[in-house]
Amino acid sequence: MYYGIAIFPQKRVQDLVNSYRKRYDPHYALIPPHITLKEKFELSDDKLEKTVADLEKIAKQMKAFKVRFHKVSHFHPTSNTIYLAIDHEEPIVELHNQIEQLFEPVEAPYDYIPHLTIGQKMSEDELHDVYGSLRMRKFELETLIDRFHLLYQLENGSWSIYQTFLLAKQ
Amino acid sequence: MYYGIAIFPQKRVQDLVNSYRKRYDPHYALIPPHITLKEKFELSDDKLEKTVADLEKIAKQMKAFKVRFHKVSHFHPTSNTIYLAIDHEEPIVELHNQIEQLFEPVEAPYDYIPHLTIGQKMSEDELHDVYGSLRMRKFELETLIDRFHLLYQLENGSWSIYQTFLLAKQ
Repeated sequence: MYYGIAIFPQKRVQDLVNSYRKRYDPHYALIPPHITLKEKFELSDDKLEKTVADLEKIAKQMKAFKVRFHKVSHFHPTSNTIYLAIDHEEPIVELHNQIEQLFEPVEAPYDYIPHLTIGQKMSEDELHDVYGSLRMRKFELETLIDRFHLLYQLENGSWSIYQTFLLAKQ
Repeated sequence: MYYGIAIFPQKRVQDLVNSYRKRYDPHYALIPPHITLKEKFELSDDKLEKTVADLEKIAKQMKAFKVRFHKVSHFHPTSNTIYLAIDHEEPIVELHNQIEQLFEPVEAPYDYIPHLTIGQKMSEDELHDVYGSLRMRKFELETLIDRFHLLYQLENGSWSIYQTFLLAKQ
């Protein structure tokens, strides 16, 4: 089965991001707005229980934290993705690193940059238009991150939920 | 904020149900296939923590169980909904009853019948056609129910995840 690990920011952040995703993200209907902690990976049923226990350990040892989304950025020309960038992203990178250590090392094609996608798989023109209109805008969005989720992918490409992992209290 | 409480059956059940929902359920893109434990309700932020603690208590005191989906049924003429009916539904009804006791009693318009929707808001003709073609079909689907989830609704009508509650081991 295919799994993924993600953080969902607080509702008002998800609502704002969805107002863009509706137009610019073909994954809009497949999953709510999220920060990916670990990209889609395959896990056999017999390894699920151990993985869940390991994720619980990681969650318990990290304190909840706040992050701020402060500006729009993009991954062009690597990919035609526009996203909300995260100020002081270190705790998310740390969480990502700890999670990756549970799994076989993969030759990751890119460095991990935590981000909240607002558009992807856009045409060049669309990307430049949207980025051009949003790049000067100041965002003042904050969200508490006190949990992350293990999801699994259904046959239609959408993501269903397996389990929540709560970080320690702040 | 609006919340809901639901059970997601195992993946192969969700995949089968989605093959029908894609055509017959306008909520197809808003939430994965689910058994509703508590319909959409409003909860103020200051009551969230207590509600979560109460749901944890309920979950811990109930053992995980299996259910079987054995046939297709419908709620016509109350509503034009077709669903997979659940054999030995008692543990789900019990879970529902315990959860409802946490909240102000509401004048529920119908008895609670646990079900897994495969189509809703259908026209009369469509309902009769689909039910007619599925009513003789035997389903032999089983799913382990060892958790339920508290969800919240985004502005676009879709449901995001707040927390998982694990039942006690079988």
